Amino acid sequence: MEDFTYAISTRVYFGKGQIRNLGRNIKQYCDKILLVYGCGSIKANGVYDDVVNELNRSKVEFVELSGVKPNAKLPDVTEGVRLCRENNVAGVLGVGGGSVIDCAKVIAGCAAYEGDAWDLISAKARYTKILPIFTVLTLAASGSEMDALAVVTDMTRNDKLITGSNMMLPKVSICDPTYTFTVPPQHTAAGAVDIFSHICEPYFSADESAYVSDRIAEALLKSCIHYASLALSEPENYEARANLMWASSLAVNTLTAKGKNIGWSVHEIEHTVSAYYDITHGVGLAIITPVWMEYVLNETTLPRFVTYGLNVWNIDPKLEAMEIARTAIMKTREFFAALGMPGTLREAGIQEKTHFGEMAIKAFGPEGRTYSFMPLTVADVKNILEKSF
Amino acid sequence: MEDFTYAISTRVYFGKGQIRNLGRNIKQYCDKILLVYGCGSIKANGVYDDVVNELNRSKVEFVELSGVKPNAKLPDVTEGVRLCRENNVAGVLGVGGGSVIDCAKVIAGCAAYEGDAWDLISAKARYTKILPIFTVLTLAASGSEMDALAVVTDMTRNDKLITGSNMMLPKVSICDPTYTFTVPPQHTAAGAVDIFSHICEPYFSADESAYVSDRIAEALLKSCIHYASLALSEPENYEARANLMWASSLAVNTLTAKGKNIGWSVHEIEHTVSAYYDITHGVGLAIITPVWMEYVLNETTLPRFVTYGLNVWNIDPKLEAMEIARTAIMKTREFFAALGMPGTLREAGIQEKTHFGEMAIKAFGPEGRTYSFMPLTVADVKNILEKSF
Repeated sequence: MEDFTYAISTRVYFGKGQIRNLGRNIKQYCDKILLVYGCGSIKANGVYDDVVNELNRSKVEFVELSGVKPNAKLPDVTEGVRLCRENNVAGVLGVGGGSVIDCAKVIAGCAAYEGDAWDLISAKARYTKILPIFTVLTLAASGSEMDALAVVTDMTRNDKLITGSNMMLPKVSICDPTYTFTVPPQHTAAGAVDIFSHICEPYFSADESAYVSDRIAEALLKSCIHYASLALSEPENYEARANLMWASSLAVNTLTAKGKNIGWSVHEIEHTVSAYYDITHGVGLAIITPVWMEYVLNETTLPRFVTYGLNVWNIDPKLEAMEIARTAIMKTREFFAALGMPGTLREAGIQEKTHFGEMAIKAFGPEGRTYSFMPLTVADVKNILEKSF
Repeated sequence: MEDFTYAISTRVYFGKGQIRNLGRNIKQYCDKILLVYGCGSIKANGVYDDVVNELNRSKVEFVELSGVKPNAKLPDVTEGVRLCRENNVAGVLGVGGGSVIDCAKVIAGCAAYEGDAWDLISAKARYTKILPIFTVLTLAASGSEMDALAVVTDMTRNDKLITGSNMMLPKVSICDPTYTFTVPPQHTAAGAVDIFSHICEPYFSADESAYVSDRIAEALLKSCIHYASLALSEPENYEARANLMWASSLAVNTLTAKGKNIGWSVHEIEHTVSAYYDITHGVGLAIITPVWMEYVLNETTLPRFVTYGLNVWNIDPKLEAMEIARTAIMKTREFFAALGMPGTLREAGIQEKTHFGEMAIKAFGPEGRTYSFMPLTVADVKNILEKSF
């Protein structure tokens, strides 16, 4: 087991009506915030009113940045930074799913930086001061409500980058599962795939010694499998929405990666797809994950796929190892399909493969992925993209 | 699923040599601490030297309270409080297992209180100021390194009470599994039982809706089962020591209880045994747990025991439900026996049952335990104690 630090200081208020804790918590840090949200769903479902009432009740002033787009985009960040400076706000509240929260986080990180925000996002400069971040979660997916990372896209560069800092961990997150009752089926499904993939990324490694972390990963994978379809068929099933929401936070807050030497793979490949074609992240993951699994399955990676098959999918241990692994991958594919996810990039609306060569380089750089469990050359990544097409 | 707050702000440095992070972290809070430790094992195994070197290197002054006894006792608390005041220390560092860390926590809680420490411990008064707490863990057992509670015994009153406050959560815990290489077999075993019991307490409840928490609980139970015997047969097996240590922290930091309506039971009963007979906590738990399980198994509790049998002990799901439950209890008993735990209180050195009547009242008070899943009258508790004898 590898050494690690556990430091997840986010205070999560989880459950019905937890919005009542937002104002007094923000007040401990600041009196005026930037309120960041998306394209209007929170106005339709009443979450916006809940937030505004709570901010008013607690006498927290706010300035609004609305209309934040999916796959948090650079122009929204730039606009948010401008609003922070002009209005002298001292904190940022994101109300939404991963794109909104990531946008809020990066705004908070760039607000005090004099240079170009992209310097910080692309790690040319370092975050030195980050405004306190608060979140109200409305989609179980990214886990951004309890992690120190954000993903930002610059479509003009076709770059979708992961950025972060320990200071980017939200101070307080309000996680009310009833706020996800109105999430449409395709986003519920894509969110569940995102959670599933966040758990798979550290789970698929050669090292079996971080037993506690691997068993917790399986606990969360089983929770996704158990509840994703139920949340689709019964959108107001509290138990399903609640377990998916809590799984989303635990999936990527580093808990399942503790003690592991890890290297993510599918997310990096999918990010290049979103950066060129702006598809929903979870949809891209659903398409690429099974292809990637088939591609990297070999004698070296076999034991981990067997563990996955036995412990997550309850496949008969008497089967031959390679059959267990292949069945596990088939079940993964079927799980995504049952959620209504498209099976190919073409089905997801991508009509041509012109950029696959560039994308394959962008995923892990010209050297490819060197992580020992399953190294991937640029040619491998291109192959995975072709097979996903 | 019940509402909850997640706020576990302890920074855990986990792994070999993590002691190097102790001094600079303490320095962020204070320059002078009380160093609390037990009866000398840390001097024999080098941990004391590591700590003192690190404190000196970081220019942290310290005053020592040594000789803290098992089942953290009131006189040690009183002495620690005196030392804090006389020496004007501003933080408390516990180096040891649960008894030492609990003692350190309660000293930190009582140092600023003018009245009798027992007022705070027995909840007659409230903690208002608690000195910052730091820990260096040398035994995988209590989880005190990452929770907000402490257990203190006053042998003159025969009271062993749980006390706590959010402010009692350690600021920083150093968890180096190599520091447990020299733990003798009986303490390694008792520690594993304590971890196991911490997971069982919230796990055994009627509500199946906190699926994520229950699956995580099973992940940790399986980790105990997987590694406890290995740590006994190979005391310097890093993987075993590390997984047990990390399981100990996660077992009781409230992670497995999130979203659950819970009520502990075996711990309360065992605490009365320790309070009268001063036996090792984990030993008492190993004796009482299977007796309690048999006692509370009925048609209402059966489904949970079946879940336990299937998911933790991999019992054949084709068996009849009651047989699965009984087999699971038998396997629990066998697991403890294989660790060398005594099977009865008599084997643990208790020669008479004189106090069982009073103890049965002390466990949950004269009304007994009213928690709906498995209420226990005073007579029930006395019965469980008799059957454990």
